[in-house]
Formats: sequence, structure tokens, C-alpha cells
Amino acid sequence: MSILVMKFGGTSVGSIDRIHRAAKRVSAEVAKGHNVIVIVSAMSGKTNELVGWVSETSPLYDAREYDAVVSSGENVTAGLMALRLQEMDIPARSWQGWQVPVKTTSAHASARIEEIPSDNILAKFDEGMRVAVVAGFQGISPEGRITTLGRGGSDTTAVAFAAAFDAVRCDIYTDVDGVYTTDPRICDKARKLDRIAFEEMLELASLGAKVLQTRSVELAMRYKVKLRVLSSFEEQSDDAGTLVCDEEEIMESNVVAGVAYSRDEAKMTLISVADRPGIAAAIFGPLAEAGVNVDMIVQNISEDGRTDMTFSCPTDQVMRAEKAMNEAKAKGEINFHDLVADKGVAKVSVVGIGMRSHAGVAAQMFEALRDEGINIKVITTSEIKISVLIDRKYMELAVQALHDTFGLDKAS
Amino acid sequence: MSILVMKFGGTSVGSIDRIHRAAKRVSAEVAKGHNVIVIVSAMSGKTNELVGWVSETSPLYDAREYDAVVSSGENVTAGLMALRLQEMDIPARSWQGWQVPVKTTSAHASARIEEIPSDNILAKFDEGMRVAVVAGFQGISPEGRITTLGRGGSDTTAVAFAAAFDAVRCDIYTDVDGVYTTDPRICDKARKLDRIAFEEMLELASLGAKVLQTRSVELAMRYKVKLRVLSSFEEQSDDAGTLVCDEEEIMESNVVAGVAYSRDEAKMTLISVADRPGIAAAIFGPLAEAGVNVDMIVQNISEDGRTDMTFSCPTDQVMRAEKAMNEAKAKGEINFHDLVADKGVAKVSVVGIGMRSHAGVAAQMFEALRDEGINIKVITTSEIKISVLIDRKYMELAVQALHDTFGLDKAS
Repeated sequence: MSILVMKFGGTSVGSIDRIHRAAKRVSAEVAKGHNVIVIVSAMSGKTNELVGWVSETSPLYDAREYDAVVSSGENVTAGLMALRLQEMDIPARSWQGWQVPVKTTSAHASARIEEIPSDNILAKFDEGMRVAVVAGFQGISPEGRITTLGRGGSDTTAVAFAAAFDAVRCDIYTDVDGVYTTDPRICDKARKLDRIAFEEMLELASLGAKVLQTRSVELAMRYKVKLRVLSSFEEQSDDAGTLVCDEEEIMESNVVAGVAYSRDEAKMTLISVADRPGIAAAIFGPLAEAGVNVDMIVQNISEDGRTDMTFSCPTDQVMRAEKAMNEAKAKGEINFHDLVADKGVAKVSVVGIGMRSHAGVAAQMFEALRDEGINIKVITTSEIKISVLIDRKYMELAVQALHDTFGLDKAS
Repeated sequence: MSILVMKFGGTSVGSIDRIHRAAKRVSAEVAKGHNVIVIVSAMSGKTNELVGWVSETSPLYDAREYDAVVSSGENVTAGLMALRLQEMDIPARSWQGWQVPVKTTSAHASARIEEIPSDNILAKFDEGMRVAVVAGFQGISPEGRITTLGRGGSDTTAVAFAAAFDAVRCDIYTDVDGVYTTDPRICDKARKLDRIAFEEMLELASLGAKVLQTRSVELAMRYKVKLRVLSSFEEQSDDAGTLVCDEEEIMESNVVAGVAYSRDEAKMTLISVADRPGIAAAIFGPLAEAGVNVDMIVQNISEDGRTDMTFSCPTDQVMRAEKAMNEAKAKGEINFHDLVADKGVAKVSVVGIGMRSHAGVAAQMFEALRDEGINIKVITTSEIKISVLIDRKYMELAVQALHDTFGLDKAS
């Protein structure tokens, strides 16, 4: 008995009609012989409405009550999906998180799944049930209260069920038809990838490609869950969408899998900082406390015991960063001559597991940017990613040039 | 530690602003020293929206999934009410039916409450919690699935909690300010009653005064729960609304407590039916099977072994009744010369426990109607009620005349 997990996001179940269409997709998989666990989000807009009511009622709300209110949207969709499947003569029933139970930590509004006992649902499959519809995004705490997993938590629910039930695959139905080599809106040669490695997907997700929630990819990687992203609005073939999988399952891959970007970045430089042990902690400690999400960090070579320290953060956190640095200076914790903020930069990154075994990717990237006359302001690298900060006005040009350079418009 | 139960209906929690106002009423009772159990309905309109979605998804729905979907509205209100109370520095938390747990039968969509263990909530009161907000209308079946109690079930939830926790009183907040001697819309002398006996309230409820659900009154009577009906939209004094209570608690009461009416009645007469043992069963069996709600039944004196049988039912069930009677005649189960339907009648009733000890109420009623020139078509009586069928055009006149005759405009 093979079990398939199918997850439908908010837009895929955003109306009664769309729930009907999603149910048809489930029915097609049942016809292929799978028993299916369907994970549903709330109808699009519903969670925002509930969150709005909570904030209006109590600005500094008790997260336990927040969870009790906000989780109700998924319960509605789960029941409606089960009803629709029954209407199509498919034996189905709904489960709310506490009924499975999806056991989570007590960290309300951002709980982590700890255990999903499979016995209740497996027993129903044994009795002839073909589809278990589970309300995503929610669980139950050790204290018996309802928890939610935080925004995008339904992806995580889906992957966790796929792991717990040893599913053949976890299909994530969304409003895009897969993962692209880059954003099709700024590069018309962007191509849908048939497969992408977990590590690449993680880098792309954290760089702002909003197809999958980062946590769900991490979880899929750890439990080796085959994850497929596909559109709920297009006719599907068996190899539709993008399969996120172990790199071993990707035969001949391009060295670079994709080009990602992040538009609203700012580059900040502390000029002439005393270069002494502990100076990084003295700078980035106060920034972290002030809630500044520091991304790239570069320290220039030291001259006469002083150095320049450059870091990047989202544009809208620049004021907060300046305040934190000036306060630290006033307290004598750090010393610098000047703080220069450049709010006109963007980050462009190339990502690919092939980089591990191919030298020269960085050089190729820098040449491509040079050929377009684009100046690089900051560089950081990881094992499978190279990121640069450049003037924002060149961002689209850089993405297009890199997409060409690494031959991403052609399947490998 | 005195426990008070307060129930807020859909219009009383129909918006965030109204939830705030309801929370203020709860806070006033907490200030008086009560620990409070608040029972909430869904925000007005929400349950209808959910029911609509269910029907659209699956016209012949699985009642278990219906319950899972429809119960979500109360969960939202419960969480919001708890949040609002916390915002007013009142220790409060929400409970969904399954968390209490409210144990019910498995009769989905019309389940009956079987048991409400009090330990969970009492333990929290002991820890300093002052308000338990409970989602009304719902419970959990022996199989662990969510059940609902049927429309108006939140009143029943409230009374059941008042019984289980031995509450000092059960306050039902609604959009009217109490129980009236008759409908103020058709009799401007109608007067709000300070007290009414359970039995009288039951008769009035079943006669169409829609202030309280009949089941909740039955339950209150059985467990001797003091039930108060009052408006959530007016300033309240300690003796606001109407107290529904044991007749012993009503000192000097009028003989008649109220005049009720039912507008859309039909009178049907089977002419010249064979008067033999079993004829009533032969007539009313098929009517019950056809779903006809027969109310009053009158059998004329027999002549030559034949009689006329008259009964009343709602106007919109006349066609169904005619079909059932003609089919029974065709099968030879009954025999009659003619079936005459009069769709132009209404029912007017006077109700009062004082009738038990006062003779002559019926005579006084008939005289009052005669003085107005109103012909009585059918009469039925019970221990505390007299009902008559009359021409519909005289209905308002009859109600006003009876209200005057029994001095209902004057407090006793």
C-alpha cells in the first residue's frame, strides 16, 4: 500500500470551486492506486482575517489564544475537502491536528512538530479509507492546547507526514508550476527545472525564492522525502513541476542550478574601527539585539591597527542599525570614525551543487559582471553559492548576464 | 466560590466591537466576585456561511464532516473573547468542546450532551483563573469526533454547564430584553415579565416565542437551573431581563402569564370517516411518515358509525398531508368522503400555571373572543394552556383582546 502526501496551499483551496478542482487531482492519484494524505491550508485570505481580528482584540496577544483562533481556517478546508471527496465516492475523512495527534512543542505560534503517530490513520486505511484530509499548520502541545507552526507551516506539516508515513512522495500544489532557474519576471529565458537538490533549494529559499518554506526543505532533506512542487492550476503529467531530491538522484546537472536575487539590500560600512580581538562581537552583538538581520560581513585588511567593517542588511533596517551603532559608540563599546550607509544595492547569487567539483565558477561569474560593466561591492561565498552586492540599477542586467553565462536556458 | 454562567448569542458577539462590549459585562460580574463560565456562539452570519459551503460542496453531506466544519465559528469567538478579557487584566482562557470535554452522543448535527466533567475548569479556577470561555454548540463523540448540538445549541450548552458546575444562575444574553406577555409588535400593551415559570416558558417556546431553545428550558427545569434572559444591548440592573425559574419562586402571579400565537396554520378535515378502533392510527401514521407536523386533533361525535376528523398543521405542509391521505385512501387503509383544507387559520393560546388552581379561564377566554365576534374553529387544552384556531384575519384582534381580558398589561 503506497502512501502519497499531497499539500494544497491557500490559493489552491481559495474557493469552493477550487476545492473541487483540488479534489479531482486527489481522485486521480487514488485511481493510480495510492492511499493519499491530503494536507490543506486555510482558504486564501481567511488566516489574514483571523490574525486581524486577534490583533484588533488584543495587540499583545496570548499566543495560545492566537493559535486557538487562527487554526480554525484549516479545519474548515479539511472538512470541505473530505466532503467533496465523499461526493466523488472516495472514502475520506478529515482530521484536525489534535485528532491525529500532531504532537508539537509548546512554542505557540511557532511550534515544532515532535511526533506524528501513524496508527490512527493507518487503521482507517486498513478499513478501506482512501484519503485522510489533515488540517495543516497546526498541532497539539503537551498541555493539550492547540498550537500552530507559524506562517507557511502547512508545507512543514506535509513533509512531516510524508516522513512519518514513509510516503512515496510529497506533492506541494501551489500557484507556480515549479522551481525556475531564476525569476521569469526579470529574465524571459528562465527555465523550469525538472529536478533540484535539497541543498540548492535551501539556498534559493533563503535567498527569497518563495516557493517552499525553508523549514520544510530542511525536514525533507533530513528524512529524504521526495518533494515535488507543482501548479494546481495547470493540467499535470507525471513529470510535471520540479522534484526536490537528493543530489544523487540528479544525473547530469548544470554546475549552476539557478540565479537568485534580493532587491532591497543596504550596505553599511563602519570606517576605521579598532582592529582588536572581540571587535566583531562588539559590533554584531548590539545589531542582533536591535533586531537587525545582518547578512554578508566583510572585514578589510588592517592598516595601523584599524580596519573598515562592512555588512549588509535589509534596507528598512538601516535606521535601526545606525541607532544601535551610535549607542554602542556612545557607551564606549566600539569606536569608529564614520558610519556610511548605501541603500542602493541589491544582492545577486548563483547557486549550484556542481560548484563543489567545478573550479572557476567564481571567476566566470566575476568576468560576466565585468563584461557588463557592473562593479562588485561585496563578495561572499559558501560551498554551493556565490553572492555579490552590486548597484541596484544593474540587478536585472546581472541576473540576465549570469543566466546566459552559465547556460541556464538550456537543459543539461 | 460562586460560579455564574453567561451565554452570548451570535448578534451579541457579531463584531469585534460587540465582543468588547460583551467582555465588559463579564468583567462586571467578575468584579462582583463570581468566577464566570462564558458560553459563546459564532459571530452572527458565520455559521450560515459555513453551512452554505458544506451544502454547496456536498448536498447530502456526511454529518460528521458538517460538524467538523460548522463548529469552527464558535472556536474563533471563544479565543477572541478570552483575548479581550486578558486585555482587561482578567485571567481567562478558551476551551473548545473537546478540550473540556463536553461528552455527547454520536448523533452528529443533533447530538445530546451526556456529561461535562468539571475537573479541568475547576482546577484552573483554583489556580486563579476567573473566566473560562467555552465554545458553545459543540462537543466530542465517544469516537473522538467533533459533534454539534443542532441550531440554538449554545443555549443548551450554557444550561448544561450551569447544571454541571452548580452555577448560581445562567444568564442568556440575546437581542431582546426578556420574555414578554405577548409579541410587542402586535400588541403595544405587551409587558416584559420579571419572572416566568419553566413550564410556561416551555409552552411559549414551543408556541413560537423564539427567545430560548425548548431543549435548554427542559434541561434547566430538570436540573433547577435559574435561567435569566436579558439584552446585551441595554444597560443592565441586577433585576434586568426575565428570570425563568421554578414556580415556587414566583410569588403572586397572574393566572395567565402570556398570550402566544402561530400565524401560518391550516385546518384539515376528513369528512365522514368510518369510526372504528384504530382509525386514528390509520390516519396519523401515514401523516407522520410523510413528515407532517400535526398539532391539534379533534374528533367529532359519531353519527351512524361515521365521524369527521379535524387536525391542524403548518400551512406549507398541506399538500404533503393531502397526498398522504389520498394514498392511504387508494390503498384502502382509510375511507373518507372528502378532505377539506382551510389554509386561512391561525392559532392563539393563553398560557399560565395559575390555570391549574383557577377555574373558568377557558370560559373567560371564549367570552372575550365572542365579544369581539370571533368564531372559534377548534379548541385544545392542556393543564396550563388553552389554544384555539380562528380565522387568520382576527389573529391580532384576538391577541389584543385576550391580553386585556387577563390584565396582562398590569403587573400582578
